Amino acid sequence: MKQPVRIAVTGAAGNISYSLLFKIAAGEMLGTDQPVILQLVEIPQAMDKLRGVAMELEDCSFPLVHGITLHDNPFDGFKGIHYAMLVGARPRSKGMERADLLEANAAIFSEQGKALNDVANRDVKALVIGNPANTNCLILSRNAPDLDPSQFCAMTRLDHNRSLGILGNKLGVNPSDIDGVTVWGNHSPTMYPDLHNATALGESVIDQIDESWYKTEFTPRIQKRGAEIIEWRGLSSAASAAQAGLDHMRDWALGSEGKIVSMGIISDGSYGVAKGIYYSFPCICEFGSYQIVKDLEVNEYGQSMMKKTEQELLEEKAAVDHLLPADTAESRENLRTSTDGQTQFDNGVDAASAYYKADRIC
Amino acid sequence: MKQPVRIAVTGAAGNISYSLLFKIAAGEMLGTDQPVILQLVEIPQAMDKLRGVAMELEDCSFPLVHGITLHDNPFDGFKGIHYAMLVGARPRSKGMERADLLEANAAIFSEQGKALNDVANRDVKALVIGNPANTNCLILSRNAPDLDPSQFCAMTRLDHNRSLGILGNKLGVNPSDIDGVTVWGNHSPTMYPDLHNATALGESVIDQIDESWYKTEFTPRIQKRGAEIIEWRGLSSAASAAQAGLDHMRDWALGSEGKIVSMGIISDGSYGVAKGIYYSFPCICEFGSYQIVKDLEVNEYGQSMMKKTEQELLEEKAAVDHLLPADTAESRENLRTSTDGQTQFDNGVDAASAYYKADRIC
Repeated sequence: MKQPVRIAVTGAAGNISYSLLFKIAAGEMLGTDQPVILQLVEIPQAMDKLRGVAMELEDCSFPLVHGITLHDNPFDGFKGIHYAMLVGARPRSKGMERADLLEANAAIFSEQGKALNDVANRDVKALVIGNPANTNCLILSRNAPDLDPSQFCAMTRLDHNRSLGILGNKLGVNPSDIDGVTVWGNHSPTMYPDLHNATALGESVIDQIDESWYKTEFTPRIQKRGAEIIEWRGLSSAASAAQAGLDHMRDWALGSEGKIVSMGIISDGSYGVAKGIYYSFPCICEFGSYQIVKDLEVNEYGQSMMKKTEQELLEEKAAVDHLLPADTAESRENLRTSTDGQTQFDNGVDAASAYYKADRIC
Repeated sequence: MKQPVRIAVTGAAGNISYSLLFKIAAGEMLGTDQPVILQLVEIPQAMDKLRGVAMELEDCSFPLVHGITLHDNPFDGFKGIHYAMLVGARPRSKGMERADLLEANAAIFSEQGKALNDVANRDVKALVIGNPANTNCLILSRNAPDLDPSQFCAMTRLDHNRSLGILGNKLGVNPSDIDGVTVWGNHSPTMYPDLHNATALGESVIDQIDESWYKTEFTPRIQKRGAEIIEWRGLSSAASAAQAGLDHMRDWALGSEGKIVSMGIISDGSYGVAKGIYYSFPCICEFGSYQIVKDLEVNEYGQSMMKKTEQELLEEKAAVDHLLPADTAESRENLRTSTDGQTQFDNGVDAASAYYKADRIC
C-alpha cells in the first residue's frame, strides 16, 4: 500500500467541492491504490456546513480516505500538502466592479500563497479553480517566492473538456478519439478554443467542420458555456468544473498519455506570449511535470485571438500590480539551489493511525 | 471494448443524481471498461434543469458515455435498460400524513413498475433509492409481474456504509477491514444495525466496544444519521446517498468479493421475517446475483429489534395494500418458464453511433 498523500481543498463546503471531494475520495484523481488525507479549508462561517460534508465523507466508508481534517485558515490547512485544489474564491456580487473583484480575490490568494510558501510540501502542486483563475494564480505564485512558478496552474481544463465534448458530439466521435485541441489564454470569454491542430480518429478536424460554425457557433459557445449552463440548470457548473479540476490534477500528476491538454501556466514567452502571466497553453504531462507543446501552427486569425486574451490578462495583472510582491525570480533561483527539496513536515503518515486520529473530523 | 449498457436514473435533475451521474459516467459503478448509455428521467417541470445536467455531462467529455437521452416519462426512459436507479420520489411536505406520503409514492412507483415490466431488458436490476424505499420497492415489484421480485432492491447500503464509517473511526481501523455488519429491516429509524457478527481485522467487534455505547450512541446515531447531516450541512445527504447507490449496484452487478453487504430484498422467510416485504438482509453478491447469508446468530435483543422494523414494514404494506395488484407469484412462475429471457429491445447499441445520435441530449 502506498503512503497517503495530503490534499487540501479550499471552499470545501461549496458546490464544486461537494462534487470534487467524493471523487477524490473514491480514487478518481490519483488512482484506486493511492490513499489520501483530505485537509478541508473553509471560511470560519462555513465550518458547520463543512463538518456536515466531512460526516458524509465518513458515511461513505471510503477505503482510500485515511484522514480528514477541517481548517478555517490556510496556514493550518496547507501543512505538508502535496496537492492544493483552490476552489474557494470571492464571487462577483451585485454592483461590484471588475477591479473590486480582482482586489477581493487578491486578498484571498495572497494569503494562500504565503501559506503554501510557508507550510506546504516543497513539491506541492497547486491548481486554482476559483475565478478569476489566471490572475488569482498569478497572485498566489508571486506570494510564494520559495516555490517555483511551475508548481501553480490556473484551470482551463473545463474549457478544454467542453471543447472535446461538444466537438465529439458534433462529429459523432468519442471525445477520447480527439487530440490536439488547445484552449489558449484566459479562463474568460476571451479564451481562444483552437481546433486548427486537432484531429479526430487521426483525421484533421478543421477539414471536417464549417468555418462559420467554428467561428460563430462553436467558439462563442465554449467561451460562454458557463452562462448557458446557468440558463438551463438554474445553477452554475459545479460537477463539470470538479471533473475538470480532477482531470487536470490527474494528468499533471500521472501523465497525459501523450495527449495535449490545456493548462493555465506561467508564460515562458512561448508563442510570443508575454512572460510573467498565467496563460493557457497546449501541454503534455509526464513524470509529474508539464511541458508546453511547441511549434504548433497558429494562423493569423489565431494570433489575433491569442493577442486579445493576452491583452486581457495583462490588464488584469495591471489592476492588481500594486498588490503584488516584487517578482523574486532571481532570489528564488538562489533559494532553490540552497535548499535540499525536503519539507520540514512529516509526510510519512502512518495509514492505520491517521484514519482514527482524534482530529479526523474535528 | 464492451457493448454499452443502458442505465436509467429517475429524479435525474435532483441533488442525489447530480452526485450519482458524474460517478457512473466516470466508471465508478460498473468499471472503467464498461461504456454506458444514460437514460435520464424527470418530471415534465424539471426537463429544462435536466437538460442543463446533460450539458454538463457532455462538458466532461467522458469516454465511457456513449449516449444520453432525456425523458419525461418512464415508458420512454426505461426502454431496454439493464439498470434502473430510482432516485426520484415524493418527499414529505408540511402537514402530509404518513399515509398520504405512502400513497403519493405508490402512484409514482406503480407507474414505474409497469414501465419496467413493459419495456426494460428482461434481466434489469432496479434499485429504489427514493423514500420510503422499502415500500416503494414492494409497489414497484408488484406492478412488474413479468419480472422476478429478486430483480428489485431497496437501498439500505447508506445505513450499512454509515455503520462501517462510524465504526471504523471509533475502532481506528479502515472501514474496508470490517466485515459482517448487517443493517436489518426498513430504511427508517427502526432499522437495526447489527454488530454481533462483525469483525475488524478478523477480531470480533462486539468484544471491543462498550454495550452501552453500541445501544445508546451508535445505534440511534445510525438510525438518525440523515437528520444529523441536515443539522450540520443544512441540506440532506446527497453525495453519500449517491455513493451508497453506486456501491449497492456495483456489488450486485460485479460481486461483493465475499463480503457481507446489506440489501433491502424480497423476504423469503429467512430469519423468520414475514414473506412478501422488502426487508434488509445480510447478503453476499456473486455472478450478478445476491444470496442471503444464513445461520448468523441473532440474540434476543436482536430478535426484538428485527421484529420492530418488520412490524413497521408490515404496517406500511397494510397502508398501501388496497393499491397493490394481486400477488401473481404463481402466474409469474408460468410466465417465466414460457419466455425465452430475451427483451424485445435492441441492446446491442453500436458504440460509435450511439454517441452522436441526434437524441443524445434531446
